[in-house]
Amino acid sequence: MPAPRPYGLILAGGRGTRFWPRSRTKTPKQLLPFLGSRSLLQETFDRLRPVIPPERIWVLTNDHLVDAVRKQLPEVPKRQVVAEPVQRNTAPCLGAAASALQSIDPEAIVGVFPADHHIAKASRFRALLKPAFAAAKAGKLVTLAIEPRWPETGYGYLEFPKNSERSGGGVWPVTRFREKPDAATARRFVKAGRFYWNAGMFFWRVDVFLDAIRRYLPRTASILAYLPPFDHKRFDIAFRECYPACENISVDFAIMEKAAADDQVVGVPASDIGWSDLGSWNAVYELLRRDRSGNAIRSTDLTIEAKGCYVEGSGRMVALLGVDDLVVVDTPDALLVARRDMAQKVGELVKALEQRGRSDLL
Amino acid sequence: MPAPRPYGLILAGGRGTRFWPRSRTKTPKQLLPFLGSRSLLQETFDRLRPVIPPERIWVLTNDHLVDAVRKQLPEVPKRQVVAEPVQRNTAPCLGAAASALQSIDPEAIVGVFPADHHIAKASRFRALLKPAFAAAKAGKLVTLAIEPRWPETGYGYLEFPKNSERSGGGVWPVTRFREKPDAATARRFVKAGRFYWNAGMFFWRVDVFLDAIRRYLPRTASILAYLPPFDHKRFDIAFRECYPACENISVDFAIMEKAAADDQVVGVPASDIGWSDLGSWNAVYELLRRDRSGNAIRSTDLTIEAKGCYVEGSGRMVALLGVDDLVVVDTPDALLVARRDMAQKVGELVKALEQRGRSDLL
Repeated sequence: MPAPRPYGLILAGGRGTRFWPRSRTKTPKQLLPFLGSRSLLQETFDRLRPVIPPERIWVLTNDHLVDAVRKQLPEVPKRQVVAEPVQRNTAPCLGAAASALQSIDPEAIVGVFPADHHIAKASRFRALLKPAFAAAKAGKLVTLAIEPRWPETGYGYLEFPKNSERSGGGVWPVTRFREKPDAATARRFVKAGRFYWNAGMFFWRVDVFLDAIRRYLPRTASILAYLPPFDHKRFDIAFRECYPACENISVDFAIMEKAAADDQVVGVPASDIGWSDLGSWNAVYELLRRDRSGNAIRSTDLTIEAKGCYVEGSGRMVALLGVDDLVVVDTPDALLVARRDMAQKVGELVKALEQRGRSDLL
Repeated sequence: MPAPRPYGLILAGGRGTRFWPRSRTKTPKQLLPFLGSRSLLQETFDRLRPVIPPERIWVLTNDHLVDAVRKQLPEVPKRQVVAEPVQRNTAPCLGAAASALQSIDPEAIVGVFPADHHIAKASRFRALLKPAFAAAKAGKLVTLAIEPRWPETGYGYLEFPKNSERSGGGVWPVTRFREKPDAATARRFVKAGRFYWNAGMFFWRVDVFLDAIRRYLPRTASILAYLPPFDHKRFDIAFRECYPACENISVDFAIMEKAAADDQVVGVPASDIGWSDLGSWNAVYELLRRDRSGNAIRSTDLTIEAKGCYVEGSGRMVALLGVDDLVVVDTPDALLVARRDMAQKVGELVKALEQRGRSDLL
C-alpha cells in the first residue's frame, strides 16, 4: 500500500472582524501577520509545505480575496485558489471541494485547515498528520482534537470515551460533538479529561465525505451532483449557478455530529502543539514577548506608568500615561482603545459601524 | 477725579505642555479653543473688551508666536503684540511692560491677565475689575484672589487677615503669599477660610510697580532703566539687548511676597466667577457637557461600555470598548491615551520626547 499523497485544503474565507481596525473586508485576519512577517494564511501554508507540496494545496476563499490570496501564496497554482460564489458555511463548501477533488483523484485524501490559526510547534503538529491521514485513508472522518488548557466557553468540544475504551496508536473514537458549553459545563469537561477542543481541522477521503453528505445533507448532495469535473470548462459557471441553493450550515452540525453518533468519527489528540485560534487581540497579546511592565508594544511609542498594554501602531507616536491592560490599535483612519479582557467584543463595534453605514471603515 | 482708563496686559508666552499632543510649540494651549470656538487667548480678550478697548490691550508673547497672536486678535494694534526676546519669567516681563507703558502714559493703570485661563462668568469677573483698578489707582499692588473650592496643592495661596481686620468694599489686605502647600497644609488653608488661590491676575499703576522693582529687584530695575520710550525707534533693539541680562524670576517671588510684608498688597476676593486655570485635560473634561455614561467626546466616535472618558479627535474614527476614565487625544502625528486623573503628568511625556530629540512632535 503506497503512503497517502494527501491534499491540503485551506479555508481562507472568514472576515475576522474581532481584529478591527487592522482587519478589514479586503484584508481580513488571515491575510495579516500577527506573530512575525508572514500572514496567518502564509503561516498555514508554510506549516503544511514540508508534507504537502504546493501542487496539492487548495485554498477556498471569497471573490474579493482571490487576488490577495494568490499574491500571498504565489507557489500555489492559481486555479487552486477558488472563490465561493456566496458564503454557505463549511458543509457545502467542503462538499464542493470534495466533489472537485474527486474529479481529479477519485480517492483523494484531504486535510482541512483554517487559515487564521496559529500553531507554535509546527513539527509536532506535522507529526500528527501521519496518523490523521492514515485514519482518513481507512475510511474514517477524522478531526484534530486539542487538549484543553482552560475551560473555554467559546469553543465546541469533542467527547472521547472513558480511558479503557480508547484505542492505542494516537487515534481515538469520538463519541459526540458538544456545542459551546456554559462555564460550569466547560469546567466539568476540562476536569473529566476526555473532552477536547474542536479546532476545525478535519481529514477524510473525498469519497467517504461525499457519502456522508449524501446521508446527512441530501439536498446539498443533490445540488453538488450537478457539478461537472473540476477541469471541465463549465465547472465555474455550474458552481456559481448551483452553490447558492445549498444549505447554509457548518460541517460540525450537518455532518460530524451525526457521523459521530454513527461511530464514523475518530480524533487525533494533540497535546502540545501550541495551538491558538487567535480569537481576539488579547489572544495575540498572550503570545507576544512583553517588557517588564507587561507591555507588548509594536509602535513608535512612549509609555509612562503603563502596565499590561498591547499597542499595534501604524507609524504615529502612541503615548500611554498611567493606563493598565488596554489594547490600542492605531490605523490611518480608525483607532481602537479597548479593555484587553473585553477584546472579544470588538466584533460588536464592527456591527455598529455596519449599522451606521460606515462601510469605508469595514 | 476721572474714572481710570486702564490698560490690559495679556500674558501669552506659555507653552502649555500638559495639553500635548494638541498643544505644540507653535500652537500652545493659549492659542487653542477648548470650550467653544474661540481660543483661550481670544476668550481672555473677549472677556476684557467690554471694559478695556483693543487700543489699550497689550499682549506679551514669544517671538515664534507673535504672528499667530496678531492673527487671532486682529483688533489689537500690531505694535502692541510684543515678543520677549528670551523667557525671563514674569517679574522682568511685567517690569519691561510697565516701563514701555509709562513712556506712553506716566500714570497708566494696568491689569495683568494670563491668556490661558477660563472664566465661566465673565460679567461677574468684570464687576471685580472696578474695585481692583480703583485700589491700583490709589497706589496699591492688587491681586485677584480666588476663593478655594478644594484643597489644591498645585496653586499658591494668598493669606488674608482674620475677619475682624478685613476692610469693607471688597478689597482686603494681603498679609502673605504662600507657596504651593502640601496636602495637609492645603486642607488647613481651605478650612481656615482666609487663604485664597493666587490666580496670577494683578493690577497696579506702572509707576508704583516700577518703584517696587527698584526696591525689591534693583538689578532688573537698573537694566530696564536703559529702555528708551516705547515709540522710540531704538526701543526694539534696546529691549533685545538688555532684556536677557534681567533676573529670571516670577513676580510673585520677586515682588509680591516682599511687598505684602511691607503692607503694600491688597486682594480682591472672587467667589463665584467660575475660574479655572485649565491645568490639565482633566480640568477641561470637568467643564464639558457629558453624556449619561460620563463621556465627553469631541470626535467621530463609537463607544461600547465606556464610562467617564474624554476624547479629543481630529477626524478619525475613535472606538472605545469597555474602558473607564481615560483621556484620548488623537492628532495626525501623535496619540495620547492617559488615565484621566493622571493627566497633569502629560508634561512628563513632553520632556521625554525632548530627551529623545523628537522636536517634530513638540
